[in-house]
Amino acid sequence: MAQTRADRRLSKKDYESRAALLREQLVQLQVRLKDAPFKILLIVAGVEGAGCGDLLNTLGGWLDPRGVETFSFRAPSDEERERPFLWRFWRSLPANGRIGVYAGSWYTETLRDEINAGFPGSRLAPEFERIRHFEKLHADDGTLIIKIWLHLSKAAQGKHLRALEADPNTAWRVSPEHWLHHRHYEQLTRLANRIIRATHRPHATWSVLEAEDNRARNLSVAELILARFKAHVRKFDKPRKNSASASAIARRPLRVSGLKRLEALPLDQQLSASEYETKREKWLGKLNQAIRAASASKRSVIFAFEGWDAAGKGGAIRRLTSAIDVRDYRVIPVAKPTQEEKAHHYLWRFWRHIPRAGLVEIFDRSWYGRVLVERLEGFARADEWKRAYQEINDFERQLSDYGIIVVKFWLHVSRDEQLRRFRAREQTPYKRHKINDEDWRNRRKWDAYEVAVGDMIALTDTVAAPWHLIPANNKRYARLQILKTACKQIESALAP
Amino acid sequence: MAQTRADRRLSKKDYESRAALLREQLVQLQVRLKDAPFKILLIVAGVEGAGCGDLLNTLGGWLDPRGVETFSFRAPSDEERERPFLWRFWRSLPANGRIGVYAGSWYTETLRDEINAGFPGSRLAPEFERIRHFEKLHADDGTLIIKIWLHLSKAAQGKHLRALEADPNTAWRVSPEHWLHHRHYEQLTRLANRIIRATHRPHATWSVLEAEDNRARNLSVAELILARFKAHVRKFDKPRKNSASASAIARRPLRVSGLKRLEALPLDQQLSASEYETKREKWLGKLNQAIRAASASKRSVIFAFEGWDAAGKGGAIRRLTSAIDVRDYRVIPVAKPTQEEKAHHYLWRFWRHIPRAGLVEIFDRSWYGRVLVERLEGFARADEWKRAYQEINDFERQLSDYGIIVVKFWLHVSRDEQLRRFRAREQTPYKRHKINDEDWRNRRKWDAYEVAVGDMIALTDTVAAPWHLIPANNKRYARLQILKTACKQIESALAP
Repeated sequence: MAQTRADRRLSKKDYESRAALLREQLVQLQVRLKDAPFKILLIVAGVEGAGCGDLLNTLGGWLDPRGVETFSFRAPSDEERERPFLWRFWRSLPANGRIGVYAGSWYTETLRDEINAGFPGSRLAPEFERIRHFEKLHADDGTLIIKIWLHLSKAAQGKHLRALEADPNTAWRVSPEHWLHHRHYEQLTRLANRIIRATHRPHATWSVLEAEDNRARNLSVAELILARFKAHVRKFDKPRKNSASASAIARRPLRVSGLKRLEALPLDQQLSASEYETKREKWLGKLNQAIRAASASKRSVIFAFEGWDAAGKGGAIRRLTSAIDVRDYRVIPVAKPTQEEKAHHYLWRFWRHIPRAGLVEIFDRSWYGRVLVERLEGFARADEWKRAYQEINDFERQLSDYGIIVVKFWLHVSRDEQLRRFRAREQTPYKRHKINDEDWRNRRKWDAYEVAVGDMIALTDTVAAPWHLIPANNKRYARLQILKTACKQIESALAP
Repeated sequence: MAQTRADRRLSKKDYESRAALLREQLVQLQVRLKDAPFKILLIVAGVEGAGCGDLLNTLGGWLDPRGVETFSFRAPSDEERERPFLWRFWRSLPANGRIGVYAGSWYTETLRDEINAGFPGSRLAPEFERIRHFEKLHADDGTLIIKIWLHLSKAAQGKHLRALEADPNTAWRVSPEHWLHHRHYEQLTRLANRIIRATHRPHATWSVLEAEDNRARNLSVAELILARFKAHVRKFDKPRKNSASASAIARRPLRVSGLKRLEALPLDQQLSASEYETKREKWLGKLNQAIRAASASKRSVIFAFEGWDAAGKGGAIRRLTSAIDVRDYRVIPVAKPTQEEKAHHYLWRFWRHIPRAGLVEIFDRSWYGRVLVERLEGFARADEWKRAYQEINDFERQLSDYGIIVVKFWLHVSRDEQLRRFRAREQTPYKRHKINDEDWRNRRKWDAYEVAVGDMIALTDTVAAPWHLIPANNKRYARLQILKTACKQIESALAP
């Protein structure tokens, strides 16, 4: 990692003239960043007394505050504890065009936990894995991640703390915690080095800066930001457009097994209305019990409903929710991303919706849009949608590791059945709004969509979150099947 | 309140043909609503067994889900308990053009609290006041509030519960809580009637609907929504534009006392650099202590900084924050509202930022924009900005009642001093971005702004949240004054 040894003593006059120049460049950076398709995350961590607070205050004066958000984190609230570890950081992320300054971050949390636990270091490996994954995900999305570690020797730290204490006007700046950290300097430094080594990656490098002289430190940080931004923009400006063959690539399967599974699915089942009604009430009862059992052990259930247009997702969801207390579930219809959502990673809007412990969340369409509509309509480049399978598996894995039960349905109808339903919708006044030109256009791309669905099933059918393919030409059969399958997955997840 | 006695028995065929017509109209309503400058809040409450869940499920099928959000509330989380009562409802509100369906709401919370406390009814009066205020605020903002109480006689409730229990397939739908409510039917009904009477207001009427027959109930609700929407649009279409004289009205003072107070403020104090530095450290220390004491007793501090352009708000804020641990404060720069913020009540974005208990939040400009720039630039109509003084006082009162310490500063500079600073900014490369045509335009409207500032000071200087006028021609003096004043207000708020 880059280690900068800043020139120790810097006169006030020199500092001010160099600062003036850097400030101008920082403001210009912000003007350029504003319309850029990425954000900057500036993570500042370091030794007590290295002046993290003072540095942030200075940067706050240099940058235009309208484009900056500053974050720090205290002990997690219950809303945060009731979600996977990274949730609180996901919800803090600034939009593209902005700078997020992290005085506290996923690193300080990790450090604090270790200190509180007396530095066993045993829980660090999975933590590092999660952090690397998180930073890679955002770097891949274009985010510029700048990580700064402010370094101070033990001697300099001691000298600094003693000087503050000696002056009655500044003595309040030193707390017992500072001295505690000073006494554990070596242990803390070893731990910090371990964290830095484990999370120093090409897309998210650490810069260790000497922090003994405040002025030199401030200038070094500003210079680093400017240099990293310049390099990032250069990399970013390289054409990463979809090639002419992108659309052909999108239509070619990555794995044929999924498509075969789909084609082999029998679609035309029979179920009488009276038989359906009896069985439905029975399975609603069972599902109600299963969900209450999940809730009692603080396990949330997240449903993802995917399927062909007019496959009956909405109707199936309403049957499902009739088994759940109205206070215990939420349905999230997923449409085109809003302007705000577009300025974030595509998973951001789903992270935001992760429910508190013990609740049910139902997505009517989901994050799988990335590998379906975005893949086929060219909203995502080939490298983006190809990467997404792994990103989605990781996302669902995080949910599942946390104890959330992820239930995924693909509602499958035949081409003919879809046509019949489209026509029926057009002829029913109150259903006409459900069908538009886009639906007809998508229908004409059936084969391409089928390939994408096949890949999705083949590449994201995991132990943590398996796919359930639901034959849906017969609505009653499909609804019952969904109730049964949901019930069984939840029950088996709760089984000891 | 409107009491509708729905026709009891409705054949399935009749129901379906009437429903078809209503569904079409509901979808048309949503199309019109989408671009309307208001939202709909549909509050559904009522007796157990009246079918709130079933009604919401039916409406969910009838409405286009992309324009609807459904809410219900469980026991508040710690993040919610650490904010004033209405915070969780503010943060749930949908944007203009959308429908928010409240299965749980500010009413169910009130009811639940009362039931848990054994119906003393003693705490209801202030609760009612808050609810009335909340609904009036949003109704004044154009929101259509539809409140439905589903009624069921005790006999019908008992019959319904027994029928469900008799069928082994549906017995799970009845819980011990249902029977508890059945036994307390009379008490609950008396309480409900009290709530309904106390919160039935012209801008937020209750409709009590007979819920014995599911089908008739569903149709009544749909008809009610359609009728209320129609009436609301008619009222809304009346011209409410600013009259030609609006700009003249905006420039005329409502109260001259504020302007006089402003004019009487001496501006040119002296303070040497060395004296400033010693005193600054002393007062930073005191402020640090005061804020830590507030934090220890879970009292948050909210600062609102207002002042002339170039009066030194940013610099003063950075001096202030240098006394606070970086994890304990956040600075919120308030610029023009975003698209999302514009689709909400003007106080919405400030409610969202209310900190958790024991933290410090600093607004660089604030909700007072409503009675300053919005008043003078015509972004708010005369009735809107005139109403805002009371709305703001109520808002700050809610914060203060909850224990939050609200510290407000007006940084006052002379016209000449502002000119000097504008010119200096133009000549300093890294400050040039801080000054633009708009600043010069605002400067030319100095007199009008002074009138608005005077009114603001006269009309929103309350015991709960007093104004501090800070002479700011001398930056050092102003910064010290701010530290001292903040310190004193926090200390006196904490004094037993």
